Amino acid sequence: MTALSSTARTRLGRLPERAADDRSVLHRILDDGMICHLGVIVDGSPRVIPTAYGRLDDTLYLHGSTGASSLRAGPSQEVCVTVTHVDGLVLARSLFHHSINYRSAVVYGTPRIVTDPDEKLTGLRVVTENLTPGQWDVARGPTRKEMAAVSVLALSLDEASVKIRQGGPSDDDEDYALDIWAGVLPVHQTFGTPSPDPALRPGIPVPGHIARRVTS
Amino acid sequence: MTALSSTARTRLGRLPERAADDRSVLHRILDDGMICHLGVIVDGSPRVIPTAYGRLDDTLYLHGSTGASSLRAGPSQEVCVTVTHVDGLVLARSLFHHSINYRSAVVYGTPRIVTDPDEKLTGLRVVTENLTPGQWDVARGPTRKEMAAVSVLALSLDEASVKIRQGGPSDDDEDYALDIWAGVLPVHQTFGTPSPDPALRPGIPVPGHIARRVTS
Repeated sequence: MTALSSTARTRLGRLPERAADDRSVLHRILDDGMICHLGVIVDGSPRVIPTAYGRLDDTLYLHGSTGASSLRAGPSQEVCVTVTHVDGLVLARSLFHHSINYRSAVVYGTPRIVTDPDEKLTGLRVVTENLTPGQWDVARGPTRKEMAAVSVLALSLDEASVKIRQGGPSDDDEDYALDIWAGVLPVHQTFGTPSPDPALRPGIPVPGHIARRVTS
Repeated sequence: MTALSSTARTRLGRLPERAADDRSVLHRILDDGMICHLGVIVDGSPRVIPTAYGRLDDTLYLHGSTGASSLRAGPSQEVCVTVTHVDGLVLARSLFHHSINYRSAVVYGTPRIVTDPDEKLTGLRVVTENLTPGQWDVARGPTRKEMAAVSVLALSLDEASVKIRQGGPSDDDEDYALDIWAGVLPVHQTFGTPSPDPALRPGIPVPGHIARRVTS
């Protein structure tokens, strides 16, 4: 396990007890997510774009099309990538102590546009597999023309921080006497019943790697 | 219904058919969310922070503590607020046509720090009620000291855009002949069984406004 970086901006000013400096925690938060929020500067203003991504070791691969116009603005401009999971609503006796249980990862760096064909294919595989594990080997692979139409960005996880809030509410001493319910309402991300494409050829069942994810 | 703004950056360069210009759609996307991703510029670099928020008419209120250090950097600096819902994974026959069903709202503007005590209380109520409807009237209200310890930002929805992708996959003509499953795996955000604070006084049931949200 490698410690996370500790630059001025990845050290937490507020509530440093919510920081985690274990690299495996960073990896887990990233691997649990489906989209990140990519922050870039366009014409001097911040812009935040939801984007698909995936992780391989300490590299984050981003699907380039979504943020394409923003990233074309600067070929080597710094970005910020944030992945957040809301795990629960923390309901205290006092409004002041209400909170959210969450896990978030923030990554800073200057992404590079992946040009090597092998790495580009790897990046696409990593993004695809992060969203739907097992799908890369099942669907039709990209043609040369399709590869040219998509862009992949690579971002190092060198400068990153993690912030986690978990557990129940913490009220002021005198408020514990109040007859007010307090606790946590858990929040989950779940998968529903797969909805087949109406044009699906008859007799093709939902593959196991998709069926297994269904929660309900 | 008022049309959304159409500045250069809120017009969609890529896939303009995914834009929606109906203000009620913007409101719905914002009201369905629990956290936004707030983009700011700090020392010339973008920073993206998950933040609690709520909407009242065409004003977004942001809970100030989370982004406090970032926003202290510039008292009247422009921000970007993005709210994204992942509604489904779109699994096509070809990897190239894989996609995500989502709804996202992007708001640009210069927030003001709310100083008027009445509006500050309103802002806190709106943020609280967006996370847990019904909670404001149940929990102990903020004291003067607590009000001073929290900051609230107000951001106009004047400049905003909405982007939506829904429906099934769209494959290349020749790929419909492939024996590959295609369809949508729906993604939901659900609420689990409320977990009471261990220090809860005996005999206090989970209130209806919380119990009613439980999905499982």
